[in-house]
Amino acid sequence: MLIYTTVLETKKLLRNLDGWLEKAGAYATAKKFEPSVLLQSRLAPDMFPLLRQIQATCDQAKYAAARAAGKDAPSHPDNEQTVDDLRKRIATVVSYLDTFTKSDFEGTSARTVSLPRWEGKSMTATDYFIEHAIPNFFFHFTTAYAILRHNGVDIGKRDYLGALSMR
Amino acid sequence: MLIYTTVLETKKLLRNLDGWLEKAGAYATAKKFEPSVLLQSRLAPDMFPLLRQIQATCDQAKYAAARAAGKDAPSHPDNEQTVDDLRKRIATVVSYLDTFTKSDFEGTSARTVSLPRWEGKSMTATDYFIEHAIPNFFFHFTTAYAILRHNGVDIGKRDYLGALSMR
Repeated sequence: MLIYTTVLETKKLLRNLDGWLEKAGAYATAKKFEPSVLLQSRLAPDMFPLLRQIQATCDQAKYAAARAAGKDAPSHPDNEQTVDDLRKRIATVVSYLDTFTKSDFEGTSARTVSLPRWEGKSMTATDYFIEHAIPNFFFHFTTAYAILRHNGVDIGKRDYLGALSMR
Repeated sequence: MLIYTTVLETKKLLRNLDGWLEKAGAYATAKKFEPSVLLQSRLAPDMFPLLRQIQATCDQAKYAAARAAGKDAPSHPDNEQTVDDLRKRIATVVSYLDTFTKSDFEGTSARTVSLPRWEGKSMTATDYFIEHAIPNFFFHFTTAYAILRHNGVDIGKRDYLGALSMR
């Protein structure tokens, strides 16, 4: 089932994001600046800073899997303040994604997803996953990457894609 | 078939990208600067500028569909210089994606994808699509968005996601 494979991919990408944060912390130490400067960096005044981009990446991965599977996602309050806090948040979501199995994603075309702000409208779980959850996940994931690159953190395409299933 | 649905999604996102470029051109006119300044903007010295991000977005969408379907993708030389050139490139890829049907994506788990730089290694077409093509597509697509936002172009989440299949 392709949705399950894509959920596994978001889990891998969250681990990549954790690796970027490790490098970001080391960069702050080497350059002798407070990591919070990086966490509060943003690309435009009306875009989220890095910290919020990472929280949103975590949430989108969590909701993508939960809603596609028709489950209630656990609540994760956005109270992170440090690089270590964010790395724990990522680990929490990775552990949550570990609880899913292939069979959770059977019947997504017949399942319905509706959010309060959609005012009674809904999407099939398949459409929600492909048109909403995954693009939103990549929006925040890639913007986090862009903020780090813009600020000089030494990450590249391999850190973005991670290991590939080559043979 | 979820790969086909995702190909349709990349087609929609390319149309969204075309809309960003239209707004970017209007912004340059209103602010009286050369659009090429925007096309040559980048977020880090060793990242592609906007023009190259858009060419890469087009290529990733094209290769995602072609390689998953086991077809040879048409060649599109990277000779664009203006906003209009890039919008034509996008239209060309959208038309190409229009040629695919659901049945093109049957049997992707048994199909093999290999690129010259992979030195003889390969991925299944499914793994290539989910681990390589789609993340790369979103990498360039979102970075293009980030460059435009960083430079003040008035686009937002709706321009990014586009219309959703609500009912």
